[in-house]
Amino acid sequence: MAIQLYDLAGGDPALRFSPFCWRTRLALAHKGLEVEALPWRCTEKERLAFSGQGRVPVIVDGERVVADSWAIAEYLEDAYPDRPSLFGGPGGRVHARFINAWADSAVHPLIARLVLRDILDVVAPQDRDYFRTSRERAFGATLEAVVEGREQRLDAFRAALQSARLVLRAGPFLGGAAPSYADYILFGSLQWPRCVSSFCLVAEDDPVAAWFGRVGALYGGIGADALTAA
Amino acid sequence: MAIQLYDLAGGDPALRFSPFCWRTRLALAHKGLEVEALPWRCTEKERLAFSGQGRVPVIVDGERVVADSWAIAEYLEDAYPDRPSLFGGPGGRVHARFINAWADSAVHPLIARLVLRDILDVVAPQDRDYFRTSRERAFGATLEAVVEGREQRLDAFRAALQSARLVLRAGPFLGGAAPSYADYILFGSLQWPRCVSSFCLVAEDDPVAAWFGRVGALYGGIGADALTAA
Repeated sequence: MAIQLYDLAGGDPALRFSPFCWRTRLALAHKGLEVEALPWRCTEKERLAFSGQGRVPVIVDGERVVADSWAIAEYLEDAYPDRPSLFGGPGGRVHARFINAWADSAVHPLIARLVLRDILDVVAPQDRDYFRTSRERAFGATLEAVVEGREQRLDAFRAALQSARLVLRAGPFLGGAAPSYADYILFGSLQWPRCVSSFCLVAEDDPVAAWFGRVGALYGGIGADALTAA
Repeated sequence: MAIQLYDLAGGDPALRFSPFCWRTRLALAHKGLEVEALPWRCTEKERLAFSGQGRVPVIVDGERVVADSWAIAEYLEDAYPDRPSLFGGPGGRVHARFINAWADSAVHPLIARLVLRDILDVVAPQDRDYFRTSRERAFGATLEAVVEGREQRLDAFRAALQSARLVLRAGPFLGGAAPSYADYILFGSLQWPRCVSSFCLVAEDDPVAAWFGRVGALYGGIGADALTAA
């Protein structure tokens, strides 16, 4: 039976734009597990009540319910030890936790200040008020003010990817010769703006762009073929 | 026979302040290997000629010569596989490479802009001209201009440590329950300003400060007991 994934969707239910859900999508594909990715809108809190919290991704694997992309990655690694490893051992797991924390704390805030306003145009109509109100409270500014002057912040965003660039000098993936969960972490981070905005974040000649293409092509191209706003 | 380590020293030969040499010192201690840490000054390029390059750390392990802290960590892991692992497996190694790249590219430039001028006061007299000239060329500004207004940049530096803080919510070390090379990477980064400056970079109540104390206490307290400028 396929694992069910509650997956953040836009006004077009085929538009899936959550960085955290993308991490989970690729982790499931890495493990070779079938998935049924159910579109979910951020005002549908009651549909997640069974998970004891209100955010996606949530997976349902038979009797097991797991929320939070990091917890899901750990669950998949432990529940399917005979499938390809996401982490490459215990050190790989704890060090991937650092990369996860880095993406969330050092990359996502910079991306938000580039594309947050664009998300409003792709969320479902019934989510718009909630999206604007909750995000404007979180950022302490209107969506328009958050992204104002974004062209001037592109260089700082690109500089923040330097650690990935340095690692990619040594191999095709952040996981080395083959992709690991580290690749899915950063892929999810960059797939998010790609899905919601036509604003170009990564320069074409950046090694990160070539790497992004490589990860997007994995598993039948589920990342590359995703519906985007552009 | 002890492994020889060419270790950057200040005017006081007991002052050892290179972040990269500290990574190597702790990696050697982790492996339980004896070390003879030879003081080296940055104008003594000819003393490193045997290594084919001009920077420390360099280790001499019998017939083997290895330069560069990352290459040394990989060498020690491969040459001493029966000693405690630095990385915790192949995934741990490649993901530690990311953490190494993060420290070098996202943390070191911020630290330099806080304490670069202070280093001038602790280097050996014969290194002073070289230090000022080479660093002012690299930064395109005088040492004094590089650190000017440093108090206003402390918050940005502390924010850059957020990924470490998030990981430390889950365990006492960046390596989890026990220290890994990831701990030595960031410890080296923070030991560097501690050794050269009395300027306080990490707030006392920061979880990073408690972690820094834990790593400093390892292996008989070689990190904590180091001579500092303060």
